[in-house]
Amino acid sequence: MKIRISLAQMNSTVGDYQGNIEKIKDFISKADEKGADLILFPELTLNGYPPEDLILKTQFLRDSLKSIEEIQDFSESKDVVIVLGAVDWDVESYNTAFVIYKGEIYGSYKKMFLPNYSVFDEKRYFTAGRTPFLMEIERIKIGITICEDLWVPNGPAVSLAQNGANLILNLSSSPFYKGRNKVRFEMLKTRASELSSWIAYCNNVGGQDELVFDGGSVVINPYGEIELSAPSFEEGLYFIDIDPLEPTRANLREGKRKHYNQSAYYESVNTIKIGKKITGKNPIKAIKVDSFDLYEQLYLAVKTGIKDYVWKNGFQKVVLGLSGGIDSSLTAAIAADAIGPENVLGLLMPSQYSSKGSIDDSIELSKNLGINYKIIPINDIYEKYIENLKESFKSTEEDKTEENIQARIRGNLVMAFSNKYGYLALACGNKSEAATGYATMYGDMAGGFSPIKDLYKTDLYKVARKYNELHGKEIIIKSILEKPPSAELRPNQKDEDTLPPYALLDEILFKYIDREMSYDELLQEGYDEGLLKNVINMVNKNEYKRRQSAPGIKLTERSFGKDRRMPITNKYIPW
Amino acid sequence: MKIRISLAQMNSTVGDYQGNIEKIKDFISKADEKGADLILFPELTLNGYPPEDLILKTQFLRDSLKSIEEIQDFSESKDVVIVLGAVDWDVESYNTAFVIYKGEIYGSYKKMFLPNYSVFDEKRYFTAGRTPFLMEIERIKIGITICEDLWVPNGPAVSLAQNGANLILNLSSSPFYKGRNKVRFEMLKTRASELSSWIAYCNNVGGQDELVFDGGSVVINPYGEIELSAPSFEEGLYFIDIDPLEPTRANLREGKRKHYNQSAYYESVNTIKIGKKITGKNPIKAIKVDSFDLYEQLYLAVKTGIKDYVWKNGFQKVVLGLSGGIDSSLTAAIAADAIGPENVLGLLMPSQYSSKGSIDDSIELSKNLGINYKIIPINDIYEKYIENLKESFKSTEEDKTEENIQARIRGNLVMAFSNKYGYLALACGNKSEAATGYATMYGDMAGGFSPIKDLYKTDLYKVARKYNELHGKEIIIKSILEKPPSAELRPNQKDEDTLPPYALLDEILFKYIDREMSYDELLQEGYDEGLLKNVINMVNKNEYKRRQSAPGIKLTERSFGKDRRMPITNKYIPW
Repeated sequence: MKIRISLAQMNSTVGDYQGNIEKIKDFISKADEKGADLILFPELTLNGYPPEDLILKTQFLRDSLKSIEEIQDFSESKDVVIVLGAVDWDVESYNTAFVIYKGEIYGSYKKMFLPNYSVFDEKRYFTAGRTPFLMEIERIKIGITICEDLWVPNGPAVSLAQNGANLILNLSSSPFYKGRNKVRFEMLKTRASELSSWIAYCNNVGGQDELVFDGGSVVINPYGEIELSAPSFEEGLYFIDIDPLEPTRANLREGKRKHYNQSAYYESVNTIKIGKKITGKNPIKAIKVDSFDLYEQLYLAVKTGIKDYVWKNGFQKVVLGLSGGIDSSLTAAIAADAIGPENVLGLLMPSQYSSKGSIDDSIELSKNLGINYKIIPINDIYEKYIENLKESFKSTEEDKTEENIQARIRGNLVMAFSNKYGYLALACGNKSEAATGYATMYGDMAGGFSPIKDLYKTDLYKVARKYNELHGKEIIIKSILEKPPSAELRPNQKDEDTLPPYALLDEILFKYIDREMSYDELLQEGYDEGLLKNVINMVNKNEYKRRQSAPGIKLTERSFGKDRRMPITNKYIPW
Repeated sequence: MKIRISLAQMNSTVGDYQGNIEKIKDFISKADEKGADLILFPELTLNGYPPEDLILKTQFLRDSLKSIEEIQDFSESKDVVIVLGAVDWDVESYNTAFVIYKGEIYGSYKKMFLPNYSVFDEKRYFTAGRTPFLMEIERIKIGITICEDLWVPNGPAVSLAQNGANLILNLSSSPFYKGRNKVRFEMLKTRASELSSWIAYCNNVGGQDELVFDGGSVVINPYGEIELSAPSFEEGLYFIDIDPLEPTRANLREGKRKHYNQSAYYESVNTIKIGKKITGKNPIKAIKVDSFDLYEQLYLAVKTGIKDYVWKNGFQKVVLGLSGGIDSSLTAAIAADAIGPENVLGLLMPSQYSSKGSIDDSIELSKNLGINYKIIPINDIYEKYIENLKESFKSTEEDKTEENIQARIRGNLVMAFSNKYGYLALACGNKSEAATGYATMYGDMAGGFSPIKDLYKTDLYKVARKYNELHGKEIIIKSILEKPPSAELRPNQKDEDTLPPYALLDEILFKYIDREMSYDELLQEGYDEGLLKNVINMVNKNEYKRRQSAPGIKLTERSFGKDRRMPITNKYIPW
């Protein structure tokens, strides 16, 4: 007899117990209606992930248990086993999966491997569980793991296999970054095959501050083949019927579990039995989606990140400065898709250094997108500043000070619209800028959210071209895509007057930041010494700017923000 | 025979291997000259604490070992056992104490208990050691612990006592907050007495981004009495002669260690022998300093924090806006003490809403402090903004938008001086403001460092009065101390029009933030429901502002910054 599994790829909101409970109930009802035997939710669905320091409030913890009771009561009339991620606690707190069926909590599993690297701080919040967990439904043994548990070669899944698991569930909140889902699928396929077990992996979806979860939940058979793959960046409930004898056949054929049984270390496992009947049903066809186009995924990640940051924080509309450059153009374009063009306001704020082309391009872009725009020149405000500072600056040369004053006037104007109308201000900086400090604090860096701050300039162009391709027309116009990048804060300024060419710059930045290669290691790769020192100096000296920048979406292996925690006060010079 | 211990209460700089090595050598020479048998340094002295993600760079790790070799070579000609805190690594990295004597590394101890709460992320960086460590010099057994190790009741110190330790060393980097040193002393006294052991505790001193280390190193006898206490917030080398038989007498009298030997859990201990001769010397008198005045300590912490942030980041001078209020006045006053009044520039930027009193008070304060000041009115710049926005805002009422524009003009001007002259801009906000969001992003919040951001308004007045007391005159003048707080952004504005009275506000904030009490728990304490909801709403809704604020010095149990990691996107409503 096959067992019907449903994966609830759900978009929760951190702290929103009532909203999350409603969604959970809705998914349970739908799963029950369609005859699912089991419904699997992502990690910490009930609380939202990551709840961060909310976990230090006892009321938040108490409310977690109260909310579980509400799900419990609701489950009484349903015939589906619910595996729900939520915080459990006594004096300590635990990242937990609760097994609920017909009004009862049958048991719970506490996550054993707590990630504490990159953007993760789980050792700050949780105490690790010590015992793997297995449930039996009519001789079908189903093990539970939570996210990181499955990434560890000697994690609880080994014990679960040793103890006869037919199926291993994984509740996950695995954040997106470029190319991540491929690595994740490879790991899951390897794990299913080496353990000779079904794996059902249910991932979180949606944006939460710096993180976007891409969903892409998956079910893999004991041969390591994908049998279900859910869409990325979409909420949904996905079904599959799986044959619990498949692992037995796979294992007898290749005998992989025998290796595990040779291992000296054999953990005790909590086992519970659930008296649920598995009955025959009409077979169901599982969905299979391919989601490996890197730049489409990046586009979707930014779109999801904007939408969820805006809506979950109670905004309707956004405002941003449009410079005619690729950064603000792409940000506006994706924002228009995310929340509707009628909810996007672009401000054109030309100075005496703005080219006519820039203004015309921004207007054309706005029309293509159907967003609103306003033109507010800044020359006369700028002149007033210069007049009032003339005496103080009388014996000095013009320098970046005057450029920054212009950028900050624009920041002040964008924020004035934000304050006056309650629009969220978007900052439009990219990762190459954030890395090198080629941006003005309180100027172009001003804003509540910075959607593309983790996209390298070279990737940004690829996403922009993908945007046009996906929309089937040149919405982001050719002149925006092809003009040489410029801040337009002094006559004929070009980014490459100050920075190395972006292709070379981004290559070095990727190795230095994303891959954490050191100066001397990069030198051995053959880069010019002067260039390397210049780039590394820029990165190291601008930590103070990044510290005050708006949060943005993690899109790469290693993003600025909580993913990279460098000291500002730092006299380390690697040469 | 007594053994002479020296404590090097050293101010390292993160990443500055060469600078730190020079200081370390200098301390070793001085200890050797004065006949010390052992010199103890704070935790991670060689690398600076905390090195944060620098530890993810292999070159940084390699340089750590290279630097230890340099100390090793230097130690050849000295007759003093060196206990030095530094990062060790293989594939993993360890928070380590190296024992170096006459050119050789005799052994090393890896920290067993890694803090991962509050401002600490040590589980992100280090792998925990598994074995306590003891060294023997002429039958004197000396155990080593690192910081957190000693705060744990069943930590390695118990095993060290079980294995006969006469003296337990502790290398520490324990950050300051209000009242912390008292708690620390109490713990150390308890530990020494319950273990019947000498404890020599050497703490880091100086500022590092959000943290200030207060030093206050201490030596405690096996009866729990302080025999040496070093000054707080000062670098120095401190000596004491201790009798290694004192623990034997204390233990025989009370038999406390017998309890430990009853414990079932008895860890193995690494033991090394060092062939150093302990010879008789003229006795030395240990220093004893009382450092428990709360407001003097806060003043010293802010002063140290400013000085080290300015100097370690290569600045000479600071610029800040002077409003005539207590916040900017106290910031300017402490900055003048920290880096010299000639290095402080105050900007008076009156608008039409500024009272004459505010301007006069700022001028009088500047003169009292001997700092430079400039007056740059902002009315006409403000009018230009309003003119340019008139069309866009035509159907709206005046509101906080117009207030924020003024604040941001001031922010732009402060930053213009910072850019033009390379001065560090100081922001002057306090904790009550940061908590409630009663401040303007990119306006009064603009600046590279925010020295008093973790001082509640009510404490701020106490520190200001202490400042005058310590200086023996009314430098911060009476009218500044006594005027009702106002942002002066609209006619006759007072803080208390918007906020509850500060005494009540700060009391609630302390309980909600520093003590993490929940809404319903506070309600049970008898606070008005409406008031509570208002305060908690303000705190929760302004996380986005704090996220973009300048780093400031941790001065309380729980500061904003890396100490408190709340989501911005957060729909948790506790009522």
